[in-house]
Amino acid sequence: MKDFVFHNPTKIIFGKGRISELGSEVRRTSRKVLLVYGRGSIKKNGVYDQVVDSLRTAGIEFVELPGVKPNPVLSKVHEGVELAKKEKVDGIVAVGGGSTIDTSKTIAAGFYYDGDIWDAFVGRYEVKRSLPIYVVLTLSATGSEMNMGAVITNEETKQKYAFVAPTSYPRVSIIDPSVQFSLPRIQTANGAADAISHVMELYFDGTPDVWIEDEISEGIIRAIIRSTDILMNKPDDYDARANLAWSATLALNGVTRTGRSGGDWSCHAIEHSISALYDIAHGSGLAIVTPAWMKYVYKEDIGKFARFAEKVFGVEESDEERAALEGIERLKNWFKSVGLPTSLEDVGISSTEIDKIVDNAAMRTPFGSLKRLEKEDVREILKLCV
Amino acid sequence: MKDFVFHNPTKIIFGKGRISELGSEVRRTSRKVLLVYGRGSIKKNGVYDQVVDSLRTAGIEFVELPGVKPNPVLSKVHEGVELAKKEKVDGIVAVGGGSTIDTSKTIAAGFYYDGDIWDAFVGRYEVKRSLPIYVVLTLSATGSEMNMGAVITNEETKQKYAFVAPTSYPRVSIIDPSVQFSLPRIQTANGAADAISHVMELYFDGTPDVWIEDEISEGIIRAIIRSTDILMNKPDDYDARANLAWSATLALNGVTRTGRSGGDWSCHAIEHSISALYDIAHGSGLAIVTPAWMKYVYKEDIGKFARFAEKVFGVEESDEERAALEGIERLKNWFKSVGLPTSLEDVGISSTEIDKIVDNAAMRTPFGSLKRLEKEDVREILKLCV
Repeated sequence: MKDFVFHNPTKIIFGKGRISELGSEVRRTSRKVLLVYGRGSIKKNGVYDQVVDSLRTAGIEFVELPGVKPNPVLSKVHEGVELAKKEKVDGIVAVGGGSTIDTSKTIAAGFYYDGDIWDAFVGRYEVKRSLPIYVVLTLSATGSEMNMGAVITNEETKQKYAFVAPTSYPRVSIIDPSVQFSLPRIQTANGAADAISHVMELYFDGTPDVWIEDEISEGIIRAIIRSTDILMNKPDDYDARANLAWSATLALNGVTRTGRSGGDWSCHAIEHSISALYDIAHGSGLAIVTPAWMKYVYKEDIGKFARFAEKVFGVEESDEERAALEGIERLKNWFKSVGLPTSLEDVGISSTEIDKIVDNAAMRTPFGSLKRLEKEDVREILKLCV
Repeated sequence: MKDFVFHNPTKIIFGKGRISELGSEVRRTSRKVLLVYGRGSIKKNGVYDQVVDSLRTAGIEFVELPGVKPNPVLSKVHEGVELAKKEKVDGIVAVGGGSTIDTSKTIAAGFYYDGDIWDAFVGRYEVKRSLPIYVVLTLSATGSEMNMGAVITNEETKQKYAFVAPTSYPRVSIIDPSVQFSLPRIQTANGAADAISHVMELYFDGTPDVWIEDEISEGIIRAIIRSTDILMNKPDDYDARANLAWSATLALNGVTRTGRSGGDWSCHAIEHSISALYDIAHGSGLAIVTPAWMKYVYKEDIGKFARFAEKVFGVEESDEERAALEGIERLKNWFKSVGLPTSLEDVGISSTEIDKIVDNAAMRTPFGSLKRLEKEDVREILKLCV
């Protein structure tokens, strides 16, 4: 097990009806907030009203930044930073999923930076200060509600990059699983695929002797699969929503990272190149890329891939290679079973586009820790995605 | 799954040689600390020197409170509170295991209270303020390094009670697994039994549909058993020490409590009555009481006990009752295999003492959530411990 520092200060308030506690939490630090959200679903499902009621009751002023879209973009961040500065807010409330939270984290950092906050994504600026961030989660997927990372697409350069900073941890995140009852099935599945991928990126980074982290990682994946299977037929099953939601948060709150080398993150890197160019859902992209990456690299740590097959899918096969391959197939079939795409063709991306994706990924190669991937490795993996 | 709030602000610094970081961490809040420790083992294994070096390098003054003993007592707390007030310290550094940390947490609270801090243990005072607490862990067992609880024995009244307060979370806990290489085998086993019991107290509290928490709980127990088995033969196996240490911390840092009713805690309550009277190691007491409690209550949630048998010990048995009983037997046998006592006789307590233990426990009955235990239930469980 490797050395680590674990320090996650986010307070999680979890349960039905807990959004009403937002205002009193925000009041600990803020009196006027930027209220960031997406494209209106929260006005249909009642979440917007609950948020506004709670803020008003606590005497919190707010200015609104609606319109954050999936695969959130830098131009929206710029708009938010400008608005936050002009309105002199002293906090941010993010109501939504990962896109809204990540946009909010970036605005919160940009508020205290005179240059273009994109600098934080390309290593030209180290974020040391952010506005306090409060979250009301409406889609369990990215884990951003309890971590310090944010992913944003620069539309001009077609770069979908991340930054991390300890000041980006939300102060408080409210997770009411029941607000996710009304999600379209595919969004639930996308969220599940994203959360599973977070666990896998860490699990398969090649660090040996992390028994407790491996146990927790496998347990999280099993719980996600169990919950998602139920939700495909019964989207308003509270316990399934709650187990999926908390599992997705734990998938990337740092616990599964302890003792490891920091994760492989190749699947995320390749997927980011796809969704930077084609605006497909991140979870769908991961469902396409992950099995292909596994097929390409499993020989680097064949015992671990065999273990994954056994622990996650109950594969009983004494030959390690056959077990590993069977596990990859089972994962792919599970993605299919919950309606996720598993090939580029499934999302309407022709194989003639591979060059473009490879070129985008090549802005950052080499990446990956289990197997260090060069540009040509990425091409081979994408060919397995056809 | 039940509603919950999760908020654990403790920073964990984990790894070999990390004690040198203590001083710079302490300096964030404090200039003169009370240095609390036990009965001298840290002077033999080099930990004391590392701590003192780090504090001196950072320019932190310290006054010493040595002599905390296992099953820590209120009189030592009083001594510490008096010394801390007299010396006007502004922080506490606890170097040791649960006894030292819990003594420190209680002193930290007592520093800001004019009455007897025992009031916090019996519900007469709610702790709202504590001195900042820093921990260097030397024995993985209680999880106190990353939670807000403390257990102290009042020698006069023979009450071994707990208090919890959010201000009791250590600011920073440094866990260097290699300092535990020199522990006597029985102390390692006692720590493992305590950590397993923490998971079980929560796991068996009767809350249904906590799939993710159950997965994590079972994974922690498996990792503890795996690590402990190795350490019995190879006490200086770093990875086994590291996995055991981090598992024991996670066992009671709040994650396994999320979504549940708060735990059953009957085994702890009964054990506290034993170790309040006979000064046996807490972990040993739990190894005696836990299988007996399980036998007495398993019919309340037979499916869960069968699941425990399967998931923790790989019991393959379709009849739930037989599986449940087999799991209890396997746990008891595992305790024996690592040298733990499993009967009162094993620790030299005669069955004629049961009345005394029952009377002590009766100061707090009824307790327990899976099965509410009255005084006579405690007697029946103790009879199963003979």
